[in-house]
Formats: sequence, structure tokens, C-alpha cells
Amino acid sequence: MPKAEKNHLFEDERAGAIYRTAARMIYERGFDATSMSGIAEALGMTKPGLYYYVKGKKELLYSIMSFAMGQLDEYVIGPAQEIADPKERLQIIVRQHARLLTQQNEAGVLAILMDEVGGLSPEQKQSIVERKRVYFDFVRTTLDELAATDSLQPVDSTVGAFSILGMVMWISRWYQPDGRLSSEEVVSSITRIALGGLLRQGDGITAPVGSDLLQT
Amino acid sequence: MPKAEKNHLFEDERAGAIYRTAARMIYERGFDATSMSGIAEALGMTKPGLYYYVKGKKELLYSIMSFAMGQLDEYVIGPAQEIADPKERLQIIVRQHARLLTQQNEAGVLAILMDEVGGLSPEQKQSIVERKRVYFDFVRTTLDELAATDSLQPVDSTVGAFSILGMVMWISRWYQPDGRLSSEEVVSSITRIALGGLLRQGDGITAPVGSDLLQT
Repeated sequence: MPKAEKNHLFEDERAGAIYRTAARMIYERGFDATSMSGIAEALGMTKPGLYYYVKGKKELLYSIMSFAMGQLDEYVIGPAQEIADPKERLQIIVRQHARLLTQQNEAGVLAILMDEVGGLSPEQKQSIVERKRVYFDFVRTTLDELAATDSLQPVDSTVGAFSILGMVMWISRWYQPDGRLSSEEVVSSITRIALGGLLRQGDGITAPVGSDLLQT
Repeated sequence: MPKAEKNHLFEDERAGAIYRTAARMIYERGFDATSMSGIAEALGMTKPGLYYYVKGKKELLYSIMSFAMGQLDEYVIGPAQEIADPKERLQIIVRQHARLLTQQNEAGVLAILMDEVGGLSPEQKQSIVERKRVYFDFVRTTLDELAATDSLQPVDSTVGAFSILGMVMWISRWYQPDGRLSSEEVVSSITRIALGGLLRQGDGITAPVGSDLLQT
């Protein structure tokens, strides 16, 4: 691997660790009680080292949210966009999003922080709201495609899209990685409930393939 | 109507108006920026008049949450507890909770504030967490009863209960009473998705009866 690329990878991992740690601290203490020094200390970094990645506390919330949306792009939207069949695409969306929230460290805390758009500048807020909107529209369009081939239950596609996102996003509020349920048990049940609720009866649900977030 | 009862009714309505207004203000400005004087002013009450209903700002958040849980008891849990058949009970739970969130003024804001248990005293927090737990267990037990008669999809009942609550609670984050969708359109779609996702195929879903929150 060329040196430049290797350094880039390392920086990405470091940035991810920073955003996850900062998100956990903000979630537990609140944004006001979380300081740049505290984050640096928790990560064993110097304060200038931290400022290399995050310009300042004002940028922190937006950086964290952009990171979380980037994960959604990488693990959910990107893989699903490659699927032409809307039934299969819906399954990939639900499965990959549920895996993201149950397999990635601090993904639940990152998801919960996504509600804190009130702490952003108007431009930052617009950017995050727009990215959320793109995801919502992607899900709803998938349901509209199902309706066009008479494969959707007789439900409104807006209500359907919000119902799917609601049940999946809710995972971040209750799932405990060290609890009784494995990631795959949650993913399997949620996928069955979502597809069973949205697809017309008799429209077969493909058996899940693989069990790893990166395995689509 | 005897005078005492009439006064009691009036006080209940007044209390409801106070909790709804306070919830809206806290949601929009944050808890710290909401003052007892501001709430009294918004309601056209004197400050002593407000203190007759709410002992002080420290009690405010707990009073609001208790009011919201009381509504859940009255409109969802109470009516559902009277239904012996678990299939019908599940339908009543989803339908009544979705109606509560789409028909009652500020029900969405009240639901969102239910997450703010961090602002409660330990005793208050325990009481609210316990009441939420009772509701969750009620939903999960209903799914376990369905599983016992082989009417539940092959899903984990804990994941199933959280999925139902997630999709229903999410309504509070997106539904706009003055938007395109009527309360009954949302209720009808959500009920179909929830029952279609949880019940085994071929287990008929009864047509919804009535369209009013109080009509079960």
C-alpha cells in the first residue's frame, strides 16, 4: 500500500474514534458539559492533536453528525442503491441499517445525537436535514416502486417509510450489545417484521445472506 | 352534574392545558429557558394560580410526564386490557396509541419529552421508568400470547414489542396535524403494517371500527 493511502486510512480511523468518544461523552454529560480538553484526555491525545481533526467545539456536533451520515451512506444507502429490485432493496436497507446500529461501536449514541440539530448553525442544520431527507426519500421511493408493481400492502408510502425508519432507529434506544439478543437475532426479527408489514402476503422474503455489516 | 364533580372536571382540563403549554415551551426553548412566569403568562394565569397546579419548576417535568403516562393509561392501556383476544388487543394498542399521538393537542411534544428522564430526581425517574416498563411488558406479553397459539411470526417478542413501540412513538417526530395525512390515514396504515409484520400470514386483520380516540 502506498504511504499516502496508508496515512489516509489511519487518519480516518482516528477521526472515527474521536467522533465516537465525543458522541458518548455528549450523550452522557450533555453538550455544554463536554469540553475539548475532556475529549482529548479521554482519547489520550494532546489538545493540539485533537484540533487537527476538529476545528473547535462549535464544529464538533456537526462533525459527529456528518460522520454518522457518512456511515449511513457507506453501509446502507450505497449498497442498497446498487439493487434494482425494490423488494430486495427494501430488505437490504432494513438489514444494513439494523446491522449498523447493532454492530458498530457507539452507533446507537451517534443515532440519538442526530436529533440535536438545534445545536447547529443554520447552514449546518440545513445540510444535515437535507441528508436525512435524501435517505427518507430513498426509502419512500422504494415503497412507491413496490406499489407500482402491486407488491406493497395498501398503505401510504410516507407512513410506510416513517414506520420502517421508526422501528429501525428505535434500536438505538433499547439495544444492548452485551444483552440476551445477538445483532443477527435483532436484524432477523426486524427484517421479517418490516417486510411482512409492507409487502403483500405471498410475496416471498428472501433468506438473509451473510451476517456481517460489510457482507451485502 | 353535582357542583363538586364539575369543579373537578374543570381542574383536570386546566391541568391538561398547563402541561401541554409547558411541554410545548420546553420543547421549543429547552427546560432551562422555560420559566414558571413565562408559562403563567402564556396561559393568561397569575403565578400563584399556576403554583396551585404545579408546585414548582423542579416538579414541572415530572408533572408533565405523569400527565402523559396518564393519557396512555386512559386511551391505550385501559381499553386494551379489557380485550381477551391477543390479536384484537394488539390492534387496539397500535390503533389507540397512534390515535393519541395524532389527535390530541401536543401529544407529540409530550411523547418526545418522555425521553428527558435525565432531568428528574432518582425517585421520579424510577417511577416513570417503571410505568414505561409496565407498558412495554404489556405489549410483549400480548405477543407472547400470540406465539402460544402459533399466531405470531417467527420473531423474538422483545424485538417485536420494541418494533411496534418504535414505529408508533416515531409518529410524534414526523406527524403534522395540518399536513396531507389525516389522523385516520396514519392510523390505518400503521395498524396494517404492525399487524402484517407481527401476525402470521392468513391471520385476518379485523377492519378498524370507529375513528375517534374515545371510540374503542
